[in-house]
Amino acid sequence: MELKGVSLIAGKSGTTDGAQFRAVNPQTGESIEPQFRSSSVADVDAAAHAAQQAFATYSQSSGRERARFLRSIADGIDAASAELAARGQLETALPQPRLQGEIKRAANQFRLFADVVEDGSWVGARIDTALPDRQPLPRPDIRSMLRPIGPVAVFGASNFPIAFSVAGGDTASALAAGNPVVVKAHPAHPGTSEISARVIAASAQECGLPAGVFSLLFDSGIEVGKSLVQHPAICAVGFTGSLTAGRALMDLAAARPRPIPCFTEMSSTNPVFILPSALRERGKQLASGLFNSFTASAGQMCTKPGLVFLPEQQESEGFLSQLRALTAASDAFTLLTPGIAAGYQKSLRDRAGRSDVKTSAASNSSGTSAALLETQMEDFLKSPELSHELFGPSSLVIRYQERAAILEAAEALDGHLTATVIGNPEDLVEYRDLIQILERKAGRIIFNGYPTGVEVSHAMVHGGPYPSTSDSRFTSVGSMAIFRFARPVCYQGLPESALPEELRDANSLGIQRMVNGKMTTQPIKK
Amino acid sequence: MELKGVSLIAGKSGTTDGAQFRAVNPQTGESIEPQFRSSSVADVDAAAHAAQQAFATYSQSSGRERARFLRSIADGIDAASAELAARGQLETALPQPRLQGEIKRAANQFRLFADVVEDGSWVGARIDTALPDRQPLPRPDIRSMLRPIGPVAVFGASNFPIAFSVAGGDTASALAAGNPVVVKAHPAHPGTSEISARVIAASAQECGLPAGVFSLLFDSGIEVGKSLVQHPAICAVGFTGSLTAGRALMDLAAARPRPIPCFTEMSSTNPVFILPSALRERGKQLASGLFNSFTASAGQMCTKPGLVFLPEQQESEGFLSQLRALTAASDAFTLLTPGIAAGYQKSLRDRAGRSDVKTSAASNSSGTSAALLETQMEDFLKSPELSHELFGPSSLVIRYQERAAILEAAEALDGHLTATVIGNPEDLVEYRDLIQILERKAGRIIFNGYPTGVEVSHAMVHGGPYPSTSDSRFTSVGSMAIFRFARPVCYQGLPESALPEELRDANSLGIQRMVNGKMTTQPIKK
Repeated sequence: MELKGVSLIAGKSGTTDGAQFRAVNPQTGESIEPQFRSSSVADVDAAAHAAQQAFATYSQSSGRERARFLRSIADGIDAASAELAARGQLETALPQPRLQGEIKRAANQFRLFADVVEDGSWVGARIDTALPDRQPLPRPDIRSMLRPIGPVAVFGASNFPIAFSVAGGDTASALAAGNPVVVKAHPAHPGTSEISARVIAASAQECGLPAGVFSLLFDSGIEVGKSLVQHPAICAVGFTGSLTAGRALMDLAAARPRPIPCFTEMSSTNPVFILPSALRERGKQLASGLFNSFTASAGQMCTKPGLVFLPEQQESEGFLSQLRALTAASDAFTLLTPGIAAGYQKSLRDRAGRSDVKTSAASNSSGTSAALLETQMEDFLKSPELSHELFGPSSLVIRYQERAAILEAAEALDGHLTATVIGNPEDLVEYRDLIQILERKAGRIIFNGYPTGVEVSHAMVHGGPYPSTSDSRFTSVGSMAIFRFARPVCYQGLPESALPEELRDANSLGIQRMVNGKMTTQPIKK
Repeated sequence: MELKGVSLIAGKSGTTDGAQFRAVNPQTGESIEPQFRSSSVADVDAAAHAAQQAFATYSQSSGRERARFLRSIADGIDAASAELAARGQLETALPQPRLQGEIKRAANQFRLFADVVEDGSWVGARIDTALPDRQPLPRPDIRSMLRPIGPVAVFGASNFPIAFSVAGGDTASALAAGNPVVVKAHPAHPGTSEISARVIAASAQECGLPAGVFSLLFDSGIEVGKSLVQHPAICAVGFTGSLTAGRALMDLAAARPRPIPCFTEMSSTNPVFILPSALRERGKQLASGLFNSFTASAGQMCTKPGLVFLPEQQESEGFLSQLRALTAASDAFTLLTPGIAAGYQKSLRDRAGRSDVKTSAASNSSGTSAALLETQMEDFLKSPELSHELFGPSSLVIRYQERAAILEAAEALDGHLTATVIGNPEDLVEYRDLIQILERKAGRIIFNGYPTGVEVSHAMVHGGPYPSTSDSRFTSVGSMAIFRFARPVCYQGLPESALPEELRDANSLGIQRMVNGKMTTQPIKK
């Protein structure tokens, strides 16, 4: 499709005279056609109002209707696959296989949520039937279920231009729950964003939904995003990106006259704890596994293992030599944007200037290099800033002497998306306390794996205590992501005919419901 | 028991030299023995740290262990019933039957949560089993469940000195989820608070739990509460009270270096929509029902119906005459505190000074009177402040001419805990759009009932859009209240022996789990 370069407001083009910007090819540094126009304040207002209007009808759509819409989007993503991959590569320098995988992932996320809402049990229907003879007072009939929260503002991430962006998990889960979505495109991949947006808008039209169910806004700066989060019609926010931007949105959402839930997925260093037994038995395998994980997608994943706790023992030097060698031999990396590349270089220079950190290896190829940093546990514990996220292909190895030290280090951690333990199953008896600490620090605990690679499934939690996310009670990946954008509504004493289908006696949808405290798919017999 | 008048920090007495204050008998205006001491900053710190320490072990307790603790508290409340009721009446002027009911409610809340955590299914266990042969990549074994969020700060409400206070639903649900609790007592009922606290502390000791699982702090002012919400060891907040105080806590929680979830239940006017058919058929019955509801507990319930939309028709005057007569004939009310009484009088004077509000009746008995206010729809729509909460035994009747007007009024509403429709079941076909609007405005929709009287059950939602609460995705009453204080944690690739009991293949607890997308209580066969 030919790119228009303007925002898409409820199926119509937005302003054509906003500030101009273009995507930049991170490989060449050249700007890419066409030029894009930042949205106007009027565009934001129009998109939010269209979403609010669409909410009145879209919120009443059935799970089946929404499933059809979500599957249509999935098919549209598949059909636009070549275009998305080509434009995505131009704008992000991510390699084709990575982008192809991401496109499949994006389409499958829509299909997962289609299955979830078609099945219908996700609404958590609960029914407490009337007890007219109860003493001292009768109990009325009380029924509740999740209902959509209202128009959701979504902020696309730079590091997953498809699966965590316009057609990403936030959009899929918000639409699945019954909410219109207004996306603020990430300015680093506006073309990929426009292609994705037009797929979604076409599906809305095909399914006969109000056009306001989806809008896309552009901005090279931050004003559009700020206005969007502050707009009275917006009821929730989904964001993936940096701690600075995420916290700014949290603060805006909290400071509104009417504060709204703001789920931001921000910053995580994903500590990896190597236990002595594992290092003894398979140090070599671990070195290459870790290297692959921290350099995957040029180290630009939310789950990159940025901290590796390594025991001091006979095998430590061998492990490190190998890790250094892999790092030194690696090809140059191209980061997503010139800004990210500059930030990475600056952080490495800062680390290199410290007496307590040794930059033990950096590839000597031209361009952005992978880097392996090393420090001692006692230095690490004195410098909390060493555990901050460093976006790019680097990792920090912290050498520890004894069991007590990693417990202390674990206890001192901030919130992370993941924490990984590498050892033998028997170790987990001795390190039970480590797991118990990590449970409080991370959303996902991995044993003998690597944190990169986040399954999109029912049990997945891609969340965690601050600063990894704004609210550890939610996840942005997997089917539970829908719960961010829904709220329980209770119906007391309503006649059958006025109840949502999910709460009627007959249970014609056959969903799982809690009836007087027991889960059942059976109808209620009167 | 003899009251000590000092804070209770992990089983020990807090400072004895803080600022002094006493409860005031609202009936007589006299201060009551003993004198209480505001907690010190050191007390806050000690309580929060003790809670943090206790969390390490209490968070690992089983559902059965926690159920035993909760039932012990329930029994303790029953045993202290006479003392609680006597002191409660002195401090709040609420009548004995009301307090007796509240004490039963409080004990039953602990029993409900005991049942919930003993059953164990509340953790929402999800298991996606490994797919080692999946292409292009194998799927690891992924399991998740809800885990406690960390130490919870609870703020007791003035209007329910037992069931929404120290031994209230916030404390019960936070403890049930596995979190230690630090309560800031409401200064209007410190004695009732101390009795409740000592019941909980005694149960903790009896059950062999770390004393830090529960602490009580006193303060006649706001500093202790502020320090508590800002304390780094506190991970979540539960509050019931005024919009001003609740919003202040929300803002503090959001502005922390590490923001935390803050559930505040604050302000609701609980609109009631009377439809023409109901007024025609049973105006008399409605007048007395509404009068009882808005004057229940002297109009000091979160769910008091403060707005009544009345159609203009033949029966309107009869209905109003009766409501005026009931109001005029009512006895004087004693409000919870001199401050609340003064606020009520001031609000009534403000309303009386308006040309668009008619104070149609006020009881002429001595003391605080019930008040019935009246206005016209067009005036109401022009003055959003008329829909603000007015705490005390009053209600505002808004007369409307036509169907379109109540849709407009409903659309203009802020968030409320409840919205009530009174009509015939057949009306709900014609007023389907009204219900759809109210779904977006309230946490609970009531048909042909009154909003006061909130069932403690599985399907109950005592929540709603801002300003009724801080986060419409949660409820503070009913078994779903536990979800405020828990977060999902995911375990990837962990050996059976290192998993929580709830996630092991055998499902020895027999809980409901989602296994590969399907709900089941069956074990997993390998």
